[in-house]
Amino acid sequence: MRKHKVIFQPSGRRGEVEEGKSLIEAAQQLGVDLESICGGKGTCGKCKVRVDEGYFEKDNIDSRMTNLSPITDGEKKFIKPADGENIRLACAAELHGDVKLFVPEKSRAGKQIVRKTARKVTVPIEPAVRKYFVELEKPTLEKTIVGDLERLKAEIEAEYGLTGLSMDYAVLTGLQDVIREGDWKITVSIWMDSEIVKVEPGFVESSLGLAVDVGTTTVAAYLCELTTGEVVRTESMMNPQVPYGEDVMSRITYAMMTEGGLETMQKALIDGLNDLIGRLTANYEMDAKPGGQSIVDMTIVFNTAMHHIFLGLNPVYIGLAPFIPAVQNDLNIKARDMDIGINHASYVHVLPIEAGFVGADNVGVLIAEEPYRMKEKVLIIDIGTNGELLLGNKEHLSSTSCATGPAFEGAQIKFGMRAAPGAIEKVKIDPQTREPVYKVIGKEEWHTEIKGDIEAKGICGSGIIDVVAEMFKAGIIDKSGRMAKDLDTERVRRDHDGKLEYVLAWAKETSIGTDITIAQADVRALQLAKAALYTGAKLMMKKMGIAKVEKVILAGAFGSYIHKKSAMTLGMFPDCDPEKVYAVGNAAGDGAIMALLSRTKRLEARKQARELEYLEIAVEPEFEKEFIQAMHIPHMKDKFPHVKKMLEESGSAVPVKG
Amino acid sequence: MRKHKVIFQPSGRRGEVEEGKSLIEAAQQLGVDLESICGGKGTCGKCKVRVDEGYFEKDNIDSRMTNLSPITDGEKKFIKPADGENIRLACAAELHGDVKLFVPEKSRAGKQIVRKTARKVTVPIEPAVRKYFVELEKPTLEKTIVGDLERLKAEIEAEYGLTGLSMDYAVLTGLQDVIREGDWKITVSIWMDSEIVKVEPGFVESSLGLAVDVGTTTVAAYLCELTTGEVVRTESMMNPQVPYGEDVMSRITYAMMTEGGLETMQKALIDGLNDLIGRLTANYEMDAKPGGQSIVDMTIVFNTAMHHIFLGLNPVYIGLAPFIPAVQNDLNIKARDMDIGINHASYVHVLPIEAGFVGADNVGVLIAEEPYRMKEKVLIIDIGTNGELLLGNKEHLSSTSCATGPAFEGAQIKFGMRAAPGAIEKVKIDPQTREPVYKVIGKEEWHTEIKGDIEAKGICGSGIIDVVAEMFKAGIIDKSGRMAKDLDTERVRRDHDGKLEYVLAWAKETSIGTDITIAQADVRALQLAKAALYTGAKLMMKKMGIAKVEKVILAGAFGSYIHKKSAMTLGMFPDCDPEKVYAVGNAAGDGAIMALLSRTKRLEARKQARELEYLEIAVEPEFEKEFIQAMHIPHMKDKFPHVKKMLEESGSAVPVKG
Repeated sequence: MRKHKVIFQPSGRRGEVEEGKSLIEAAQQLGVDLESICGGKGTCGKCKVRVDEGYFEKDNIDSRMTNLSPITDGEKKFIKPADGENIRLACAAELHGDVKLFVPEKSRAGKQIVRKTARKVTVPIEPAVRKYFVELEKPTLEKTIVGDLERLKAEIEAEYGLTGLSMDYAVLTGLQDVIREGDWKITVSIWMDSEIVKVEPGFVESSLGLAVDVGTTTVAAYLCELTTGEVVRTESMMNPQVPYGEDVMSRITYAMMTEGGLETMQKALIDGLNDLIGRLTANYEMDAKPGGQSIVDMTIVFNTAMHHIFLGLNPVYIGLAPFIPAVQNDLNIKARDMDIGINHASYVHVLPIEAGFVGADNVGVLIAEEPYRMKEKVLIIDIGTNGELLLGNKEHLSSTSCATGPAFEGAQIKFGMRAAPGAIEKVKIDPQTREPVYKVIGKEEWHTEIKGDIEAKGICGSGIIDVVAEMFKAGIIDKSGRMAKDLDTERVRRDHDGKLEYVLAWAKETSIGTDITIAQADVRALQLAKAALYTGAKLMMKKMGIAKVEKVILAGAFGSYIHKKSAMTLGMFPDCDPEKVYAVGNAAGDGAIMALLSRTKRLEARKQARELEYLEIAVEPEFEKEFIQAMHIPHMKDKFPHVKKMLEESGSAVPVKG
Repeated sequence: MRKHKVIFQPSGRRGEVEEGKSLIEAAQQLGVDLESICGGKGTCGKCKVRVDEGYFEKDNIDSRMTNLSPITDGEKKFIKPADGENIRLACAAELHGDVKLFVPEKSRAGKQIVRKTARKVTVPIEPAVRKYFVELEKPTLEKTIVGDLERLKAEIEAEYGLTGLSMDYAVLTGLQDVIREGDWKITVSIWMDSEIVKVEPGFVESSLGLAVDVGTTTVAAYLCELTTGEVVRTESMMNPQVPYGEDVMSRITYAMMTEGGLETMQKALIDGLNDLIGRLTANYEMDAKPGGQSIVDMTIVFNTAMHHIFLGLNPVYIGLAPFIPAVQNDLNIKARDMDIGINHASYVHVLPIEAGFVGADNVGVLIAEEPYRMKEKVLIIDIGTNGELLLGNKEHLSSTSCATGPAFEGAQIKFGMRAAPGAIEKVKIDPQTREPVYKVIGKEEWHTEIKGDIEAKGICGSGIIDVVAEMFKAGIIDKSGRMAKDLDTERVRRDHDGKLEYVLAWAKETSIGTDITIAQADVRALQLAKAALYTGAKLMMKKMGIAKVEKVILAGAFGSYIHKKSAMTLGMFPDCDPEKVYAVGNAAGDGAIMALLSRTKRLEARKQARELEYLEIAVEPEFEKEFIQAMHIPHMKDKFPHVKKMLEESGSAVPVKG
């Protein structure tokens, strides 16, 4: 197979790539950070690269670009004069010779910021793995001769009352030497009072566990001290599966259509987790043992598709009717069987999934928020690329999922991006002047107060929710989302296609060299996303005979930054007293931590996941009608009395009609 | 590191070997079949090779041999003029240049003949792994959506009443596809009514299991149909650990002294087992699936040292006082954790060991012969390089081991060899003429009736027992084992050192070009071995207050060929009615098969191994005295009335004194 030299700037990464590969495959192979929201399907237009040199051998300026496949009509739709010269979509351009490429800042995915934080967990500490210190008598010839394992088990039984223990084979092979190294004193890690998964010489107090929340976009990992329940370190990363598809369906498609695609995505995630484990344990004050091997237990949550891909289960059947998962209940899998770099004899505890698209992450939300103990009728919204809803109380509880689309994560938005440095995350618009102020991730102050460069790069989900809500309150859009034409502000203008747009940041405030604007289409995308959540909740209420929710919990990595008043303004969920709306942060991650620290929580997860009623709402006949109505921004006081009151109090420019 | 070219003839194997390695290491590296009974310690003199060319580059005949280290005094003791020119011991000669070597026939180990056969097993068929055929309902959207695994488990529970099942992770990853490939009909293999270890599309009736007996010298493997209990195929091989030491202690030493020695021996055995599995399953009529993967269960027995080495447990501690094994009870280990090429989710069931040197093989003997059900006081002798003894009845049962030495396996005997083609295995001597007749393995007739070449190559254990017993009966040796000087036969003569020897086969009857003789030292070696067994039995009887054994069972691969009258003539065990002496063949292998076919037998093994009393007899004060007495060949009628009667009836030339 012929290979070509490829260089990516500004990172300087270079290597040899096979003839015919796309530039996005080249970027993946060489580890280049390149945005690819649609997973290489040519529909997002985010993976623009500039071709700086299309040749290496000869200095013929006319043959420039000839080392790539010809530009396609699909590409032409996305490439604008403003992008500059020699721009190609990396997913479409195929390699037929040596090339040198430049990745513009807009196309760089960016290092994900750690924003998922764990709530203080208040469950009793009763982890699945516990450490026991054991002092053995030295054997002598005179005593009845018995094996090291049998003497150890007898001692544990005598001292701690644990009977019928087994020992992992890989632990057994080291037992004799560990016992003698510790001079007949050892520390034993026992899983679920039944299996010895680690032996260490001498007395070891610290016992580490790992809780992981794999989101479609972000993976968060929490290193916990199992003896105290303390979260001692937190790390996160972009889900390494993102290059194979930004959303769940595109990854399922990748698994279906690409030879070895499932294995590739599984390995990418596991390699990424092992990197995370390395970072979490580096220099951790733990007897100088290789970090990952100190971790004796692990829990993990994810949606159903990520769950299947992580486990190497074909996700195809959950993508096709009747949407059958391979397994629903919780699983305990030996870390070594999955090449996960924690103590190799330990288990990875995979929380149960609920159904089709409602996964273990929502079970995490369930056990973290415990709606099954509540009297009040609560609506819990876990916001992500898939929205997952829980509704009910201790009498009855249902779940559903709705395809929110990636708008809340900044995709399908013209200047959308993930919550990374440079992203506009908070916006206010003066109802009179229509002038905005905004905050950028990585800067403390509002943009107007920043000394030096603002360096806005795009706008992330919470910023989009804010700006659209504020545009509504400032009369820039009406209840149908349509932009007003004749406002007295240069911020609202027409783009080169003649469509209206709102300028949120002028080019000079950005690091990308162009104005950051909100297009009419962006407003529409957000309306679609919020309508999906609203419709899901509304139909659930109808099916369950619930007229009014008494409490709303907004969860998700996203949920910790969402501004609940903006969300209410947009009508993202049915009306509720703002005092009873809570943003709880990453409840799925909290659930994973609780399951790590508490066996009761594991049992609760198993039980609650099975008792939950799953509602399939997309097949409901009134779905379409409800959805279209929900596209509107709230305006009827009988439906949204609390929103009406809120808007009135805030001095909104919009008359709220009764 | 410098390397040298090495060629072995007549096999023609060649390769590059590191400077300073011994020729025996070169032979191991290149896979050359070379006898090494002492494990390379320079004490057996069996590894003679002829150096045909000591150089390759230059044609200087005077520099011959200079490419090897100088000949040692130790070598000189073993190398006789009759061996020919340029003979070296492969264990002593070290490589310092290119060499071409010839391995004389006497030095070739030979392919082991399969002599271990399984008794007809009469235990009820209740294997640990059973197959179940399951027909699943096709899932629909309307039904409550549940996972494939959950629906499968529900169906198994409904149809077969098995609850609380788990599924091996590696099986789970294939479940969905197998279910759909079988059009919702599958066959499930379940281990111990608790774990699904295999799923196959459609209906599969055959269920294969493997029972293995790892002897110090020979490994026997039995492929069984678990549904019928039938042994469908048997294969054996030389233990691939033999090159690292012929006996248990030399292998323990190898593990202690050689970097990576334990892993090397473990891998050698497992690789060998995988070869055996390949041979057992080749072309077996099983749905054309890769053979080893059809095997869903496995049992294995061995002595304690082989047990530890197989499991990768450091055997050092069982070689040193107080002789502590790592583990005694039975183990179930995932085949994939040990790289054993059966169904990777299945378990290898390792039978329990008893103590120090009494291993799982003796537990196999125990459950195969069931002395714990007998009224009669029975002595069971498992003959091998280590002798293992069981004594007692259902009231009380004890075990011990005694270092028999390798004489019964043909080592430490001048013309000794293993039971392979060309070995003299049966001998009769005319008491008047002192002329022998013998049978050679691989030929049907006595040697005097063979048309064509006899091609005797050496003498194996049963032949040695026969010939020494017959020499005694013919008056060639006396009760002390000393050879008679002045007999009227050319068969008894002096060797070149002036020592007496008996010529069993003339050079013209052999394929090795020299007479095959029984030296005085050979008689002594046999006396030592039989004295060890006898003393062990006698001291056990004394300790247990048993005056007379009512039954003797001779077990061992060896046991199936031993001629019980010869064994009795030599006084290998305390006197017993010959009608009550049985040779049962490989009882250890039988036990492994029974444990494969019957869960009851597994429980019986666990229970009986623990209830057995282990007697340490080597530390008894009277051991030495008893042992020296036992060196004699029986002659006192009060001690051996049955032997006396037997000899009288057979018309022995020896007057049996009262």
